[in-house]
Amino acid sequence: MADLGGLDVSQAAALGSGATFWATKAVGPVPAMVLTDGPHGVRRQSGGGSDHLGLGESAPATCFPPAVGLSQAWDPELVERIGVALGDECRVLGVHVLLGPGINIKRDPRCGRNFEYFSEDPLLSGVLGAAWVRGVQSRGVAASVKHFAANNAEFDRMRASSDIDERSLREIYLRAFEFVVRQARPWSLMCSYNRINGVYAAENTWLLTDVLRGEWGFDGVVVSDWGAVADRVAAVAAGLDLEMPATGGASDRDVVEAVEQGRLAAGVVTRAAERVARLAGRTHEQTSIPTSFDIEVHHALAREAAGRSIVLLKNDADLLPLAPSRIAVIGRLAEQPRFQGGGSSQVNPTRLDRALDEIRRLAGDHEVTYSDDATHAAAADAAVVFLGLSAEDESEGFDRPHIDLPAEQIALLRAVLRVQPRTVVVLSHGGVVRLDEVSALAPAVLDGALLGQAGGGAIADVLFGVVNPSGRLAETVPVRLQDTPAFLNFPSERGHTYYGERIFVGYRWYDARELPVTYPFGHGLSYTTFGYRGMEITEHGDGLAVAVTVANTGARRGREVVQVYASKSASRVSRAPRWLVGFGSVTLDPGEDRVVEMAISRHDLAYWADRWTVEAGDYTLSAGASSRDLRLHATVTLTGDEEPVPFTAGSTLGELWADPSAAALIAATMAELPGAAAGLAMSPELLAIIASIPLDRLVGFSGGRLTRDRLAALLVQINGQRAP
Amino acid sequence: MADLGGLDVSQAAALGSGATFWATKAVGPVPAMVLTDGPHGVRRQSGGGSDHLGLGESAPATCFPPAVGLSQAWDPELVERIGVALGDECRVLGVHVLLGPGINIKRDPRCGRNFEYFSEDPLLSGVLGAAWVRGVQSRGVAASVKHFAANNAEFDRMRASSDIDERSLREIYLRAFEFVVRQARPWSLMCSYNRINGVYAAENTWLLTDVLRGEWGFDGVVVSDWGAVADRVAAVAAGLDLEMPATGGASDRDVVEAVEQGRLAAGVVTRAAERVARLAGRTHEQTSIPTSFDIEVHHALAREAAGRSIVLLKNDADLLPLAPSRIAVIGRLAEQPRFQGGGSSQVNPTRLDRALDEIRRLAGDHEVTYSDDATHAAAADAAVVFLGLSAEDESEGFDRPHIDLPAEQIALLRAVLRVQPRTVVVLSHGGVVRLDEVSALAPAVLDGALLGQAGGGAIADVLFGVVNPSGRLAETVPVRLQDTPAFLNFPSERGHTYYGERIFVGYRWYDARELPVTYPFGHGLSYTTFGYRGMEITEHGDGLAVAVTVANTGARRGREVVQVYASKSASRVSRAPRWLVGFGSVTLDPGEDRVVEMAISRHDLAYWADRWTVEAGDYTLSAGASSRDLRLHATVTLTGDEEPVPFTAGSTLGELWADPSAAALIAATMAELPGAAAGLAMSPELLAIIASIPLDRLVGFSGGRLTRDRLAALLVQINGQRAP
Repeated sequence: MADLGGLDVSQAAALGSGATFWATKAVGPVPAMVLTDGPHGVRRQSGGGSDHLGLGESAPATCFPPAVGLSQAWDPELVERIGVALGDECRVLGVHVLLGPGINIKRDPRCGRNFEYFSEDPLLSGVLGAAWVRGVQSRGVAASVKHFAANNAEFDRMRASSDIDERSLREIYLRAFEFVVRQARPWSLMCSYNRINGVYAAENTWLLTDVLRGEWGFDGVVVSDWGAVADRVAAVAAGLDLEMPATGGASDRDVVEAVEQGRLAAGVVTRAAERVARLAGRTHEQTSIPTSFDIEVHHALAREAAGRSIVLLKNDADLLPLAPSRIAVIGRLAEQPRFQGGGSSQVNPTRLDRALDEIRRLAGDHEVTYSDDATHAAAADAAVVFLGLSAEDESEGFDRPHIDLPAEQIALLRAVLRVQPRTVVVLSHGGVVRLDEVSALAPAVLDGALLGQAGGGAIADVLFGVVNPSGRLAETVPVRLQDTPAFLNFPSERGHTYYGERIFVGYRWYDARELPVTYPFGHGLSYTTFGYRGMEITEHGDGLAVAVTVANTGARRGREVVQVYASKSASRVSRAPRWLVGFGSVTLDPGEDRVVEMAISRHDLAYWADRWTVEAGDYTLSAGASSRDLRLHATVTLTGDEEPVPFTAGSTLGELWADPSAAALIAATMAELPGAAAGLAMSPELLAIIASIPLDRLVGFSGGRLTRDRLAALLVQINGQRAP
Repeated sequence: MADLGGLDVSQAAALGSGATFWATKAVGPVPAMVLTDGPHGVRRQSGGGSDHLGLGESAPATCFPPAVGLSQAWDPELVERIGVALGDECRVLGVHVLLGPGINIKRDPRCGRNFEYFSEDPLLSGVLGAAWVRGVQSRGVAASVKHFAANNAEFDRMRASSDIDERSLREIYLRAFEFVVRQARPWSLMCSYNRINGVYAAENTWLLTDVLRGEWGFDGVVVSDWGAVADRVAAVAAGLDLEMPATGGASDRDVVEAVEQGRLAAGVVTRAAERVARLAGRTHEQTSIPTSFDIEVHHALAREAAGRSIVLLKNDADLLPLAPSRIAVIGRLAEQPRFQGGGSSQVNPTRLDRALDEIRRLAGDHEVTYSDDATHAAAADAAVVFLGLSAEDESEGFDRPHIDLPAEQIALLRAVLRVQPRTVVVLSHGGVVRLDEVSALAPAVLDGALLGQAGGGAIADVLFGVVNPSGRLAETVPVRLQDTPAFLNFPSERGHTYYGERIFVGYRWYDARELPVTYPFGHGLSYTTFGYRGMEITEHGDGLAVAVTVANTGARRGREVVQVYASKSASRVSRAPRWLVGFGSVTLDPGEDRVVEMAISRHDLAYWADRWTVEAGDYTLSAGASSRDLRLHATVTLTGDEEPVPFTAGSTLGELWADPSAAALIAATMAELPGAAAGLAMSPELLAIIASIPLDRLVGFSGGRLTRDRLAALLVQINGQRAP
C-alpha cells in the first residue's frame, strides 16, 4: 500500500471522486490520474470536450477494430498486441487508465452496446479480455474491466435491475470477469449502472467486496461508470473506491459527514483512498513519457487485425477470392465506412481507409465502378455489395427494436442479383443482423461487423485473397429475432429484467432447443480446407490437455481456429448440450499438418451450486471448426469434488433409496409402521410416486406413530453407516 | 361464526387436524367431517383403505371425465351439472368435503398431474372451476379448490420452490383461483405441497391471509394437501385452518405449546377452529341423507359429458362420421380403456364401457374385427386405431421425461395405413402428446384425452355421428417438446423451479414467438361448418358485451364454441399477442343462425402492476373458432385507471420529456448548466441516448452546480404544474 502519510478523512474522501470529467485529484503525495474511454482506441478529450457520449472532440488515435469485430479473430495474441499499442498511445496522450475491455455477455442481439463486447460466450470473452488487459498494463497503463456486472441492455440502464439466479450469474455473467481478474490481474474495474437482484452494482457489497475481492483476489480500484453512483456513502461502504465524474465535492462531503455521524467507518474510506493511491503509483511508475507513437505502424496493426476479424460466412462455388477484374462496387458503406459504434467509445481516427479505394488499388488495371444502385453491375465481372446498419440504427444508449437489415438494402441486393449472379455481400454492423434472406440470395457473404479505421483495406485484402479469411463468429446468427433466448424478457419492464433463460444464452439456447440458426457460433470458412484427426486427451495440471492434428487439405496457406466443446450427458443439473472449453489456432501451408494443443481448465467443466463443483463421471470433449461442425469426439472420466450431504428430516425417500444402506434401514422402519406408511413400503410399483416424500412427513402419515425422536435416532444411524 | 361455547385452546387446536386419514374430529358442538379425493368422481375409502395414492379400495362411484377431458367441452353448464351429480354421490357416501376442482395451470406438458387440471389458460380454468364448485356446493357438500398455488410439477413436489415474479403469479397462476373464490365462494380450499418464492404454501401468510382472505374475501377453510404441513405452528400463523391427515395429536400439542410459550396468539388458533366449525355447520345443514343415487342416470350424464369432450382434430375428406360398415378396430385401448389418471383421483367406477363393444353396437349388422395388429384392416371399409399413453406412462407423483407416443404405436399406425387409407385415430392420454407424425399420417384424428367410465360409448357416438363433435383443445399441441415454454426450466433444479417464461404460458408463448404448433389452443372441428358475422361490442356493467352472429352453414345440427381474445398493440408492459377473455357456445340446425353474447370482464383486460391496472387506449377483440382461427375483429377504446406518479429525483429525463410542461422546465434548467449537462440539452439527436439518465445524476454531471436543493425545488415546480 502507498504511504498516505497523514491524510485525514476529508482528504481520503477527496481521493474517491473525480476532479474533473476525466481526471482524479492530486491529494497529498498522490498524483492525479487521467482516465479515458476505450476500449478499441484512446478517446482523449481536452479543452472543451468532456462528455461520455462520443459527442465532443478528442485527440487523434488509432481506431482498432471494436470488440464485435476483433473477437471474430479468436486470437488472444493479436488482442494483446493491440493492448500494447493502446497502452503506448495512452502514454503519449497522458492517459493513466483506459476504460476497457468491455466483457459483458451478449445476452440479446438488440442490446445497443453489443458492439463493445466480445461474445455470447464467457470463456471467449474472458480469454480475449485477459489478453487486452495484459497488453495495456504491460505499458504501465491501467485497464478498467467493465461493466461489472450483468449490464446487458441500454434501456433504462441507470435504474433497471438484472434479476438473475446465482448459478446463471456465476456461470455466464460473472465468469468472464472472474477469468480476467484471476488471469490478468487488472488494476481497475468499472462497476455498471444497473442494479443486480435489486441492488445497484455500485452499492453491491456482495459483488464488489465478497465476490470480487474476497473470492477472486482483486487488488485494484473499483471505479464507477460515469454517473453510476446514486448514493456515494452506500457505494463506499459496499467497496467502491472512485466515483466519476466530478461532483463538485458534494459527494465527498457526504462521505465525511457519514464518518462523523458514525454511519460509515473511517477505515473504509481510508482503504478506498489507499487503493486509489496504489493505482496512481502503478500508473505513474514509468517516468519517461514518449511524445509520439508511430501512426503508420499502428495503422498497419489495425489493418492486420481487421483482416483477421473478417468472417467468410458463405462462398458458393469458390466465388471468392476475386481475381483482379472489372468490379462493380455498390452501396454507400463502400465509401462512407461504418467502422466503429456510437457513444462513449467513439475514437477520432488517425486515418480512415475506404473499401472502394482499396478495391480499386487491388483490381489492377481493371475498371472498378461505384454507385448506390444496381445499374452498372451487369457490365462487370463481379459485384461487391456493401450492406449494413448505419450509426442511426444502433448506438450506446438505446437498444434496437429489431435485428433486420433495412428493407431497401435487401431490395438493392435483389436488383443486383437479377443482373449479376457473381455477387459478394460485405456486411457492416455493430449488433447481429438477421441474415436468412441475404444468405439465401447471395453466393458469397463476408461479415465485417465493425473493423476500425483500416477495415477498408482489410476488406479488399480478403476480397482479392491477399488475406485468407480465418475469422469465426463470436455470436450466433439466429434465423429470427423470435428465436432468441431473451426475446420475451428484453429489455426491462417496470424496472426489472428477468433473466428467465438462465444459463441458456447464445448457442447454449439454440442447441438445447434444437433450433435452426442461419450461422452457428464459431462458424467461419476459409479459401482453403482443413482436415482433423488424432484427438488425444491427457491430464494437465489442474485440468486437461487436448491435442488435435489439423491438416491443410486445400491449395492455399491458411489459418484454422480449432474449438473444443464439452458435454455432460447424465448430469444432476441442467446443462447446455455443449459449451466452449478451449480453442487454439494454427497457420498451415497446403499439405502441411500440425498438432494443436489446448489446455482445458477443470473450472470450465464445473457448475455453480453454492460453490464451483465438478461432477464425477464421463465428459465428452468435441473438437471442430464451429459449434455445429464438430469433427472429433473423445470421452474422459473425471473424479468429482461434490461432497456428500448428510441425510436430514428434509431428505426424501427417493434420496435415501439411492443409498443402499440407508434404503435398507428406512425400509425396515417403514415396514413396522401401521396404515398408509406400511402400504407405501410394500408397494414397489409406487416408488416413483412416493419418492418425493420428505422423511418428516412420514411422522404425519404414520398418524404420529413414527415419532420425531425415533426419526432423529434413525437419521443418526443412517448417517453413521454411510461410507466416509 | 359458529358458537364454539367454551372450547379451550387445546380443543381448538384439535379441530385443526385430522382424526384419521379422511376424517376430522368431533369436538364439543362441532361434528366430524369426511373429506375424500375428487375431482372427477368420489373416492370414498373405508375399512382398510386409507391412502392418497389411488392404491386402496374405494366404494363404487361414477367416474366422470377427468378435467383434461371435461375441459375440452368448454361448457360450464355441463360442468355444473356434473358438480351436482358429484354432490349427490358425496351425500350418499357420507362425504362432506370433496377435494376439487383442480385448477392449476398446465405450465408444462410433462407435469404428471396435468390430467387433473383444466387448461393452460386461467380464464377457462376459472370459469370451469367455478361451475364445478357451484354444482357440488348446491348439494350442501363443500368443494375444496386445489392446489393453491403454483403447483405445476410433480418432481420434488413437497419441497421445491416455484420462483415466480408477482405479475406472472397474479395474471397466470393465481388468476383462476381468484376467479373461483370471487365468483363461486368455495367453502374450502387446499394449499399445495410446494413452496412459492421460497415459502411453503402452507406457511405462506401473504398467500393464505393477505391475498386469499384479505383481497379476495375467502371465508372458508384452508386445508393442507395430505402431508403438506412441515411446521403446523407456522402454518396456523400463516392462515392454515386444517392439517390433514391425522398426526396422532403431535402437531396439536405443538400448537398448544406455542400458545403457552407466547409464540402463537391464542386468537389465531380459535379463529381457525371457528372456520372449521363453520365448515362443519355448512356441510351438515342438509339433514336428510339419501341412501342411493341413480347409477344409470349418472352414467348417462358421464356419457353425454364424454361425447361433448371429444375433439375432432382432423377430418380429411369428411372421412368421419363413419356409416355403419365393416370396421377394423385396432389397439389394446379399444378393449382396455384408459379412462382416468393414476394417483389420488382414481375412482372405482360403477360401470365401464369399452369402445370396442359400443362400436359393434353401432356398426349394425356389419362385421367389426378387433386385434392389436394391422392384418385385418385391409378387408374392412375403415379402420379405427386406438393410440395413447398407458397408466405406466403418466400419473400423479412423477413427471414424464418426454411427450412422445410409444414408437411401436406409430409403427402400428403406419402398418395399418399401408393397407387401409380410410383410418381414424382415437387418442387416449392424460397429458398432451406430440402429434405431428400422427397428424401427417392419418386422415382423421379424434382426441379423447381421458373420458371417464362412459368414454367408450361416447367415442362410438362420435365415430358414427350420433354425436356431432364440438370439443375444443384446452391446451396447445406443440410440434416438439423443445418448443414448449418451460422446456429448459422444468422441473425444479436444486429445489427451485424458475418460471422464466413469465406470463408467456401455453398459447401466449407460441403466439408471441410465432411458433408453428400442431394444433392450436381452442381448436376443434365439427361435422358441420359455421359462419361468423356481425360482431358488436357494447358497454356492459363493469366491462363489455360482445355479440357475434353464428350460422350453421353445413348440413348437420351442431354446436359451435365461440372464443373471444383480446389484444393490446401499444402497451407499456409486455403482452401476449392475444389472450382469452370470453367464450360461449350455440347449437344450431342447418341453415339456422343465432346471436352469441359473451360478457367480457374489465378485470380480464387488466395487467398486474402492484394492483390490477387497466391501461387506457385501444383494445382489439377478436372472435373465432380457435386461437389461430379468428374470424371477426373490432376495436374498443377504454379509459384507463392508471394513476400518474409524481416525478422524483429518480425520474429519468425521458420520463420528464414525455410531459410537455415538465420538459420545458427541465430544458430551461439544463440550458443554464455548464459543461456536459448543457451539451446534453443542446443535442436533440442525443435524446434517445440520454433519456435514461435519472435527474439525481445530473447533480454529478453538472460538477455539483445543479445542487440537490435546486433539483428538489425544480421537482416541486414540475409536479405543481401538472394537470391533476
